[in-house]
Amino acid sequence: MREALAEAAFQLFLERGYEQTTVDDIVARAGVGRRSFFRYFPSKEDAVFPDHESCLADMTALLDGRDGPDPVGAVCDAARLVMRMYAANPEFSVQRYGLTQEVPGLRTYELSVVRRYEGTLAGYLRRRWAESPDGGLRADVVAAAVVAAHNNALRSWLRSGGVGDAEAAVDHALGLVRDVWGSAAGVPAADGVRVTVPKRAAQGAPGGRGDGPAAESDDDVIVMVASRRAPMWRVVQSIEAAMAAG
Amino acid sequence: MREALAEAAFQLFLERGYEQTTVDDIVARAGVGRRSFFRYFPSKEDAVFPDHESCLADMTALLDGRDGPDPVGAVCDAARLVMRMYAANPEFSVQRYGLTQEVPGLRTYELSVVRRYEGTLAGYLRRRWAESPDGGLRADVVAAAVVAAHNNALRSWLRSGGVGDAEAAVDHALGLVRDVWGSAAGVPAADGVRVTVPKRAAQGAPGGRGDGPAAESDDDVIVMVASRRAPMWRVVQSIEAAMAAG
Repeated sequence: MREALAEAAFQLFLERGYEQTTVDDIVARAGVGRRSFFRYFPSKEDAVFPDHESCLADMTALLDGRDGPDPVGAVCDAARLVMRMYAANPEFSVQRYGLTQEVPGLRTYELSVVRRYEGTLAGYLRRRWAESPDGGLRADVVAAAVVAAHNNALRSWLRSGGVGDAEAAVDHALGLVRDVWGSAAGVPAADGVRVTVPKRAAQGAPGGRGDGPAAESDDDVIVMVASRRAPMWRVVQSIEAAMAAG
Repeated sequence: MREALAEAAFQLFLERGYEQTTVDDIVARAGVGRRSFFRYFPSKEDAVFPDHESCLADMTALLDGRDGPDPVGAVCDAARLVMRMYAANPEFSVQRYGLTQEVPGLRTYELSVVRRYEGTLAGYLRRRWAESPDGGLRADVVAAAVVAAHNNALRSWLRSGGVGDAEAAVDHALGLVRDVWGSAAGVPAADGVRVTVPKRAAQGAPGGRGDGPAAESDDDVIVMVASRRAPMWRVVQSIEAAMAAG
């Protein structure tokens, strides 16, 4: 019944436009009474995003079970649930994205949903880092970074029409956050040192910065995260290996 | 006139509550006609946040003038404009924060304003990193991290009743982002290497993790950002110096 209502609502939104569709239209199409609609959805907006509540519940359940040594990994896995929900139904997700772009009220609704996801992730990190200096600050920043990375991948996938590997795209985006925050905020890799050397931009690209010999590119840096207990030879070895491969 | 309207509106919101105050009440209190209100504010919500539009314009102007080698520094400076606006009038800011907590419509409005700030910062970074691999992704993530850090400091300051040094708090919060993203995304410090060693949590704090000799704390890591051109001796020296001081 809930699914039938959401489907009827969405068909009508596409046919007539979101603003022009009333709850009465929706229940007529679904062949049920008006009260049934409000039993399942608090508002018309909620019928556009019928799965966020259960996704938020899944996210909370996933995080409740994750008390291991990698809290940033846990919030990345939690964020992946959202992409998985969108990727389960590409056509619907892409059409809804188009609808959301057109209706300011839906964009506002979506902002508040994103904020709830972010709050769920930040709340988990706050608890994990309750004893750490700046734990609350780090929790907010990492949760925001994870959500931004996830949404960047999600938006690219939606704009491409839902083609391509959505989960690979989100893994790549979250990898960027893990590279700088994952180890810094959790436990470094097994060898105690992790080094990131950004790939060079293509040489000679129009407007590229590799023209002058002294030009300092944004990518001319390496980032290293190491355990305090890593021996210095291991640090040096890891940096040299990463530079050679970069 | 604009200021008088915003003041009248705010007094009434505090006296009668936000929902109970109409635009007619506001113009009556300010002694002007109804049309005057809508000449200055598109909606009642806008009268609660009369300065965001000019702050957004200031932010755009600041960023337009910043084409130097430190784009992350530029967005941090742009974010500071928001804190400065709040700190210019602590009493008003703290009262408004209380009002925003009580009225869901104002929280939604605020979310959309925050989103516009974040979009302004991300747009600047996208342009700066247009030629970099993953430039758009990094732009979104860094903008979100900067806004989250800023808002963490702003919220703490508002909750404390607007006492304390708001700008120092926001500097500290933004420092966390710059430590991991600033150099990684821009140019490292003059000596080519920057090392961050988180301060240890107080020993013996209840629930602290320093109990067991082998306990791995979230803070047992160092983060280093270095120019690709930094000599290895400089890297080693910087890490050793930071460890000794940490």
